[in-house]
Amino acid sequence: MAHLHQPEAPDTYTDIRNLRWSQTEKAIARKAFDAALKRELHELMQEAKEIAGQMKQPSDLWDLQEYLTQRRKEIDHKYNYRYSHLTQVFGRLLYETRVSEEELRGFSEDKLKTIRSFAKFSAEDAA
Amino acid sequence: MAHLHQPEAPDTYTDIRNLRWSQTEKAIARKAFDAALKRELHELMQEAKEIAGQMKQPSDLWDLQEYLTQRRKEIDHKYNYRYSHLTQVFGRLLYETRVSEEELRGFSEDKLKTIRSFAKFSAEDAA
Repeated sequence: MAHLHQPEAPDTYTDIRNLRWSQTEKAIARKAFDAALKRELHELMQEAKEIAGQMKQPSDLWDLQEYLTQRRKEIDHKYNYRYSHLTQVFGRLLYETRVSEEELRGFSEDKLKTIRSFAKFSAEDAA
Repeated sequence: MAHLHQPEAPDTYTDIRNLRWSQTEKAIARKAFDAALKRELHELMQEAKEIAGQMKQPSDLWDLQEYLTQRRKEIDHKYNYRYSHLTQVFGRLLYETRVSEEELRGFSEDKLKTIRSFAKFSAEDAA
């Protein structure tokens, strides 16, 4: 019996997950990642102070507790420092303007292209 | 074969759970319970404002989130308004001086006795 040989489609996700990160790129990534996380946490801390300062009744207390729990989950999920996920992570952070292209300077062109695609995808996803 | 008939020990927990609450007692209980809960939540709200106001670094944010989550669980567990549990609840609140004997005036003597026993038990448990 004859088998029709299908040409292999490029497995984009596999390609992305297998991107090689040079030592220089790893250092850039770590710095940009940590800076974005620090800024986001600082922002949330200021927000939490404001919310807490305005609490008037007990139910506000549980609103704050739920908000912090939900934000913590979201932040834990978003800041996933695995090289196999980093282009996706930076794509989202770029879309949210939590990192700038400037901070990612030094990444290879294929990584930047993937990051921009993910940023565009995030934008479309949010629309 | 002869069976030795054991005299029945009073089933204290069953007795407590089957205590009958008159309409007057229910009204007193509801009022004292709500007042204690309101005071405790108000106290926690003030405490949360203070903690939030003093946050300096991102890890303080998660400390607050964990503290509120843990206190919420504890409060939900403690304030169990089921008649079968109320003497135990008031015993703990009495021990914690979150309700006064004054607020429980009007309860039957057997209930007050049980509540005081639970208060004593809480004190020993905490010691």
